This record gives sequence, C-alpha cells and structure tokens, in this order.
Amino acid sequence: MREVTVELGERSYPIYIGEGLIEQAGEYFTKHEISKKSPLMIVTDENVASRHLSKLEVALQGAGFQVVSTIVKPGEKSKSLSVFEDLITKALEAGLDRKSTIVALGGGVVGDLAGYVAASYMRGIKFIQVPTTILAHDSSVGGKVAVNHPLAKNIIGAFHQPELVLYDLSTLQTLPLRDVKAGLSEVIKSGLIWDAEFVDWIDNNAERLLALDEEALGYALYMGCNIKAQVVSQDERENSLRMILNLGHTIGHALEAVAGYNELLHGEAISIGMIGSARLGVKLGGSEEIYTVTKRVLSRMGLPVGLPEHLDIDAIMEAMLHDKKFSEGTMVFVVPTAIGEVIIDHSVSTELVREIVEQLKQEAV
Amino acid sequence: MREVTVELGERSYPIYIGEGLIEQAGEYFTKHEISKKSPLMIVTDENVASRHLSKLEVALQGAGFQVVSTIVKPGEKSKSLSVFEDLITKALEAGLDRKSTIVALGGGVVGDLAGYVAASYMRGIKFIQVPTTILAHDSSVGGKVAVNHPLAKNIIGAFHQPELVLYDLSTLQTLPLRDVKAGLSEVIKSGLIWDAEFVDWIDNNAERLLALDEEALGYALYMGCNIKAQVVSQDERENSLRMILNLGHTIGHALEAVAGYNELLHGEAISIGMIGSARLGVKLGGSEEIYTVTKRVLSRMGLPVGLPEHLDIDAIMEAMLHDKKFSEGTMVFVVPTAIGEVIIDHSVSTELVREIVEQLKQEAV
Ligand SMILES: NC(=O)c1ccc[n+]([C@@H]2O[C@H](COP(=O)([O-])OP(=O)(O)OC[C@H]3O[C@@H](n4cnc5c(N)ncnc54)[C@H](O)[C@@H]3O)[C@@H](O)[C@H]2O)c1
Ligand SMILES: NC(=O)c1ccc[n+]([C@@H]2O[C@H](COP(=O)([O-])OP(=O)(O)OC[C@H]3O[C@@H](n4cnc5c(N)ncnc54)[C@H](O)[C@@H]3O)[C@@H](O)[C@H]2O)c1
Ligand SMILES: [Zn+2]
Ligand SMILES: [Zn+2]
Repeated sequence: MREVTVELGERSYPIYIGEGLIEQAGEYFTKHEISKKSPLMIVTDENVASRHLSKLEVALQGAGFQVVSTIVKPGEKSKSLSVFEDLITKALEAGLDRKSTIVALGGGVVGDLAGYVAASYMRGIKFIQVPTTILAHDSSVGGKVAVNHPLAKNIIGAFHQPELVLYDLSTLQTLPLRDVKAGLSEVIKSGLIWDAEFVDWIDNNAERLLALDEEALGYALYMGCNIKAQVVSQDERENSLRMILNLGHTIGHALEAVAGYNELLHGEAISIGMIGSARLGVKLGGSEEIYTVTKRVLSRMGLPVGLPEHLDIDAIMEAMLHDKKFSEGTMVFVVPTAIGEVIIDHSVSTELVREIVEQLKQEAV
Repeated sequence: MREVTVELGERSYPIYIGEGLIEQAGEYFTKHEISKKSPLMIVTDENVASRHLSKLEVALQGAGFQVVSTIVKPGEKSKSLSVFEDLITKALEAGLDRKSTIVALGGGVVGDLAGYVAASYMRGIKFIQVPTTILAHDSSVGGKVAVNHPLAKNIIGAFHQPELVLYDLSTLQTLPLRDVKAGLSEVIKSGLIWDAEFVDWIDNNAERLLALDEEALGYALYMGCNIKAQVVSQDERENSLRMILNLGHTIGHALEAVAGYNELLHGEAISIGMIGSARLGVKLGGSEEIYTVTKRVLSRMGLPVGLPEHLDIDAIMEAMLHDKKFSEGTMVFVVPTAIGEVIIDHSVSTELVREIVEQLKQEAV
C-alpha cells in the first residue's frame, strides 16, 4: 500500500493507493471518524455499480455504517445540474444531515458530481473519493468539484476537499481499454508539466501500463497523485501554479464541448490538446523535442493526436472564449518550455491559437 | 455614515451603513479594487429594479465599470435551482470571467440567490451585497448563501463572504410596511440573543422604527449588523456559537415550508417561531419575563405571534425533521434563558416541541 498526503493545513488528507482497499473501507472510514449515526450516501454509476458497489456496501455495513446508494447513468451527461438536483432530493429523502458523508465510487464524472453535491448540501458536508478509473488519480485529488452547463464545462462548482481518497487498484481491472488509455493521458500530463524522468519511464513502460500490470500501474498512479498533491498544496485555489495542471485543457475542453461531451473522452480531448500545446511550445522558442516526445508518448499509448475531421474550427475557437482560463480578455495558455517544464503564458494571440488548431487537423493519427 | 467590520482574517470585510451610498457606489467599488476590465453583473428583482436599479447602474458606469443587469421575479420562489441556472446562463452569455463580480441589489432573496451564483460560477467569483430591505441587515452579513429545494429551505448553498456590503438606508423608504415589520423581526432577534438593553431600546422606539425614522433605523441596523458580525467572526461555519442566530428559525422555517413559501414572510414566520422559543425557555426553567417581553416587542411591531389556524401541525412537525439543525437524530433548539441570552439545547424532545407548536395555535394575535 502506498500513501500520498495532500498538505492543505487543516484540510490535509491522505490518498491510500493499493489492491483490495475497498474490502477494508470500514476500517479506513472508522479511522477517519466518519459518522455511524448519520446516514452515508454512496454515489456511483451503472457500470461501476454492477462491478464494485456491493463490495463497498458490504464492507461499510459490516463496520456499522448506515449506507444508502444512488446510481446515476454513466457518462459526462450525468455531470449536469438536473442530476445534481436529483441527488440532493435523494439525500433529503434518505435523511442525510450535517454529520453525513457522501462517497463517490467511480470515475471523474461521479467524483465531480457527488463532490459538488457534498459541497452544496446544507452548505457542505463530508466527502470521500473511492476512484475506480485511471483518470480519477487526477480528478479525485485537489478538491475541484463541478457540473457542466450546456455552454461550458465545469462552470458550476466549488472547491471541496475530501476527507480521504481510497484508491483500490483492483477496480481498474474491469475498466474498458479506451478508458485505460484516456486515463493514462492525464498521467502523461503530470509527467509533462513536472518530471521529465517520469515521462521517460512512461515511454518505456507503455505496454505494461496498457496491460494493467499492477506494479506498473501502482507506481504510475502514485507518481501522478504525488505530482498533483504537490501542485495543489502550493496553490489550492488556482491563483497561479495550479494552472499548470491545465496543460492541453484549453483546447481539450473546447473539443469536448464542440463534440457534444460524447464523441471524445476527456483524456482523448486533452491528448489532442497537449499536441497543440507542444506545437505552441516549439513555436514560442522551445526545442523541437517538446513536440516529438509528447507525440511519441501519446501515440504509444494509443491516444488520438489529431483533430477529428468533422469538427468545426470556428466552433472550437468560439468555445475557447467561454473558457475559465481567459481572464480580463487576455488568452492564457500553459506552454511547455521543455519536457517536464511548463510556463503560464498570458499573452498568446488568438491568431496563433487558430493556426495551431488548424494544424491539428493535418496531424497524422 | 456608520461602519462595521466583519473580522474573518483574510476574508474580513466592511459594512457601510448610511444614506445615499448607492450614488457613491463607484468610489466604494474602486476603493475595493473591483475589476473594471471584466464585466460585473447586478442581480435584482422587479420591485427593486423599478425603484433603485438605474441609480446604481449610473453610479457604476460613471466610474468606468462594465455593468450588466439581470432582473428576477420578486419573492422566495426565485430562490430556486432553476432561477440559479438562468443566472449562470446569463453570466456566461455576458462573458463574466474569473475576475468578474456579482452584485446583489435587493433583499435577502436576491442576496442569497446571487450569492450562491457568485459562490458557484467558475467555482467562486467576487460578490458584493447592496441590501435594500431591513431584513437584509441579517442576510447580507455572514456569507451564508443558498437556494431552496421543494422539500427544504436553504438546503443547497455555500459559505461565500462578500467583498463589502453597501447598505444605503435611503432605499428603505420605498419598502412596503409589511416588509418593514418582517425585517424588524430579525433586528429583534439580534437583541434577544445578545443584548437586553438593545431589546429595551427597540421596545421604546418601535413607533419611530415603523415610521422609518432615519436616525432610529440607522442605529437599529448598525446594532443588528454589529451583533451579527461579532457572532460570525467567532464561528464562520456555524459549528457552535453561530447557531444562536437561528433563534425562532427551526419552527419558523417549518412554517414557511408548510405555508408554501408564500403566505408567510420569513420575518413573520420567525416571529411566531420566537414566541415558541420563548415558551420553550420558560418551560425549561427560564423566567416568565422571557415570554412576556418577547411577545410585547413583537406585537408592538405589528408582527404575528400565533399560528395561522389552517396550518397542519403534523405537517409542521414533519417539516422540522428535514431541518438542517437536527444532527444525528437529536433535536437541537436555540433556547432563551433570559432576555438577551440564549443557549443551544441539544436534547429537546419531539413531544415538547409538538406541545409548543400546539400552544401557538391558541396564542392570541
Ligand atoms: N475534478 C478534477 O480535478 C478533474 C480532473 C480531471 C478530470 N475531471 C473530470 O473527470 C471526468 C472524466 O473522468 P473519467 O474518465 O474517470 O470518467 P467516468 O467517470 O465517466 O468513467 C469513464 C467510464 O468508465 C466507467 N467506469 C468507471 N470505473 C470503472 C471500472 N472500474 N470498471 C468498468 N467501468 C468503469 C464509467 O462508468 C464510465 O463509463 C470528466 O468529467 C472531467 O472533467 C475532473
Ligand atoms: N443568508 C442569510 O444569512 C439569511 C438570513 C436571514 C434571511 N435570509 C433570507 O432572506 C430572505 C428574506 O429576505 P427579505 O425579507 O429581504 O426578502 P425579499 O428579498 O423577498 O424582499 C422582500 C420584498 O421587498 C421587495 N423589496 C426589496 N427591497 C425593496 C425596496 N427598497 N423597496 C420596495 N420593495 C423592496 C422585494 O421585491 C420583495 O418583494 C429569505 O429567503 C431568507 O431565507 C438569509
Ligand atoms: Zn483533466
Ligand atoms: Zn432569518
């Protein structure tokens, strides 16, 4: 079992990473003083419920917790204000009170959604993340929670840190290959912004990761969580440093919005976005290697590196203007200066971004 | 001009109380470094818009702010998730970004609603309160923001402190008498929980207050804000002391829910609730004076002190069980021990509460 601490003063919390942790959830929750008198609500989705919910329920009930479970439809569409409202209704009906806890069992969709419910219900109750996807190594750490608006992703949300994160690697064995790849996209991102050696390690271990080798996976997720924890500890509210986690996300979010939150998975969209950022890095004076290494690692992982033909460039540019990262009219981009290093550039011109997006259409896949 | 500071470390902020402050809004906003580059959105309701909106718009535009205004329907029904969603849409369409500010111009309904939008939009942007009701001396201070759910009031919300509160007493001159009275109900509450002398002063100045005498009003609102600020400074997140602000609110919220958020104004509902609490105080060993003084002051202000005949007692009891203040199965009540003093009682029995509610039906108005 590996452990990472997210240092945030009185809001600090641990991430436990290991196999079979769900079976021990009762002990972990008890240790963290989760109430057994107030009902606790698990939020999960249909895909995860059929595979992992009963294990968690049994473990918690066995330890004396009062468990209520709610199952939402899988996919990004559930990160909506209307599903949020349904969950608030369920919480009220189940009698959740101020001492209750909400547990997200699932990927980033369930984590972001359930986390926003926990942040808002009675102005904030306790929250625990039990991630079941690779991508969730990113989404379950750092306390960003949100739902989408038809006009923009993650626009309605809060900062709400969990009490703990219980990352059971065994759940990853049932993950579809496409989601494995999409999740590894954020692991690669963590390397690209922080640690060139780790990028190298990923490059050399791509096959083991894709085969869900547990030793490789454990190490990669530990590294990913560790990088995220370090960044978040230094800048919880994304005033400066934390922005680097958005490498590839400005273009990526726009692609997701234009493709309708359906066609492209989040990790796939940011894979394409990171290619864009790498090109930008080279354009702005970085070495050609930024682009070649980024592209090689992503391709090796079977991730898309070019723009789907039918996506409209005007629509993508328009979607970017709604992005949170544009403050006071300037265009802000996370730009790589080398592998493992990025800067925040506050003065990227719209024309240059358009040129980059157009090039992404030519990118061979 | 009077000033009260809410001491909350880096989230501290001032409340400015005086006449004609809206005309000087441009200077106050500039002093507090509100962005002139990013659009600012005023949220108000129809009643307030027709009387006071253009003054505020002119003052802000004159000082160089980019102002967008949104007008909602008046009344508690606007404190809903669907109006919340509309406002998020408006904010997106108006291009609000992370440096933007949301300004609530109105009473507690607009303050709570706009505040929750500010707390949630892009995970939190700046917020300013420009209260226009007497009740808002309470609602605009302390950072509690929320919308209602059909099953329970204020259940979806956050803590989000404003940058400043600009309390222009001149706006109160257009307030309907019924809302004047309802607002004074919370002023009386502030006295009842904290300051017997102030209760005495209110008792002696009821007529001046009802006549909107500006000197009397200025003093009463200064005292009310001051008491609230002291309580909130000591317990921002309502872990203990802040609960005393809920005097009369457990019964009051249940009455509002059962009456359908329509028939009874918030201040009227808590007036009846405070009579219930006073009776509880006497029942639990307090002097009879708690009841007689509470009833005299509220009656003198023309506030209701008895339960409307047609409200169903079972429904009221049921509504109380959804109240946030019941944690882990026990019933928690703010109970007066003398005029100006209250305690939090964690073990009030349901039977006793029912008895009190039944007596409220017999209360002569
Ligand atoms: N909060 C943050 O900081 C943050 C960071 C990154 C991404 N995100 C968000 O995360 C979301 C994407 O996360 P995701 O990729 O985990 O999406 P997801 O939650 O939709 O999971 C992907 C798919 O895998 C299924 N699934 C999950 N676990 C499974 C398992 N163990 N076995 C079989 N199937 C399983 C799900 O049902 C879903 O169909 C996006 O909404 C993104 O915005 C948030
Ligand atoms: N956040 C908190 O800490 C807190 C505390 C107490 C109450 N509240 C909330 O406050 C709300 C009640 O506040 P309220 O009584 O101010 O209600 P309100 O905002 O509905 O205002 C009362 C009425 O007066 C009208 N009005 C407002 N200002 C006016 C003016 N200057 N001239 C003419 N008409 C005017 C409004 O349109 C409305 O019809 C409730 O929703 C309650 O839950 C919140
Ligand atoms: Zn991401
Ligand atoms: Zn109140």
